[in-house]
Amino acid sequence: MSPPVKLIGFFGSPYAHRAEAALCLKGVPYELMLEDLFNAKSELLLKLNPIHKKVPVLIHGDRAISESLVIAEYVDETFEGPPLLPSDPYDRAMARFWAHFIENKFIKPFFMAHWLEEGEVREAFVKEAKELLPLLEEQLKGKRFFGGDAPGYLDIAASMLAPTRMAVQEVTGVALINDDDYPALSQWAREYISNEALKPCMPDKDQLLAYFMKNKEMYKAGVKAMLQK
Amino acid sequence: MSPPVKLIGFFGSPYAHRAEAALCLKGVPYELMLEDLFNAKSELLLKLNPIHKKVPVLIHGDRAISESLVIAEYVDETFEGPPLLPSDPYDRAMARFWAHFIENKFIKPFFMAHWLEEGEVREAFVKEAKELLPLLEEQLKGKRFFGGDAPGYLDIAASMLAPTRMAVQEVTGVALINDDDYPALSQWAREYISNEALKPCMPDKDQLLAYFMKNKEMYKAGVKAMLQK
Repeated sequence: MSPPVKLIGFFGSPYAHRAEAALCLKGVPYELMLEDLFNAKSELLLKLNPIHKKVPVLIHGDRAISESLVIAEYVDETFEGPPLLPSDPYDRAMARFWAHFIENKFIKPFFMAHWLEEGEVREAFVKEAKELLPLLEEQLKGKRFFGGDAPGYLDIAASMLAPTRMAVQEVTGVALINDDDYPALSQWAREYISNEALKPCMPDKDQLLAYFMKNKEMYKAGVKAMLQK
Repeated sequence: MSPPVKLIGFFGSPYAHRAEAALCLKGVPYELMLEDLFNAKSELLLKLNPIHKKVPVLIHGDRAISESLVIAEYVDETFEGPPLLPSDPYDRAMARFWAHFIENKFIKPFFMAHWLEEGEVREAFVKEAKELLPLLEEQLKGKRFFGGDAPGYLDIAASMLAPTRMAVQEVTGVALINDDDYPALSQWAREYISNEALKPCMPDKDQLLAYFMKNKEMYKAGVKAMLQK
């Protein structure tokens, strides 16, 4: 029998959501341990992820695993249930390629465009995000999910464009992803947040909205600080 | 029969070396197509990797795959030969975690410390690199390679600390990795460059040295420009 699964997460973290989504899609029961990152990080988090000191951390028996996409692959390889990655090596490579694209090329300009104040710097990020968005839109061509008929690894990697993005969009008033410009991405996000298998781990819409509304200034200050680094 | 394998690479690119190393370790014959990145990029490269326009690109029949570590996993999953990733899901997760660490946390301060001019900014990167190096040293404890007795996925991910780093060290005179401070990493690098299975794709030491010597000023200007971005 598999040892119990626990997840150190944080409400509002799209990275923690990725790990939860992987567990949900595989049908793995888990105990969610929520951090209070605005106060002190827990000793457990610091002990289990001493390098990055970040959520999510998956605890499986005496094993601890960090990094959301590493967790997703671990969950896929360890537990029964529908596969998260495609079975063909080339399709797997494409899923990993696009996950890498989202992680290393897309996220920064996209969210900078949402949180930065008006100005030249923001405009440059908006321009960059708009150049990249069609590439993601294209990946959904003729498909309900990036993974095909059901959400998979790449949907997990992209998931911050669903619940998180929708809440951030409402709070900031920036709507880069909209039905006119990116109908496939818009429809995908609606499918993602209402997917039956993902329901147990989908953050409550109103609660997520309240979270970003409350912490708006912190996020704005955060992106500014990132630019000065 | 598997279709022919070609690799678009560039002499001196540690990322292209990763892809070559994966093919070498699996014993896959391949044709190396060298780009001349100092002049125009080839039409083939621009066509097959339109997103990043970077080497390496693996061509396997009518499939094209970019991103060095994505290529390494594809090669591992597609071809016979010794496995590059460990078989246990937890060990696989650890290999991926540390590859991610090298990629997203370690490489920048480490190479900034080598190429930047003396000054406060460089000192901050040296400090950061010195805080991170013991973590990698620790991963080699009691092992010849990160992958155990033979080089594997994590050795490939770390390979720029072997041939590339050794040449850069000689050209810049910066020796962060040395036998006194990091005996395991130093010994690992020597094992890596003299490994029998990797011989067919190991860049010639003198040629690599000549490459970095010749392009020294370009690299120095490059890291400076990166900081201003």
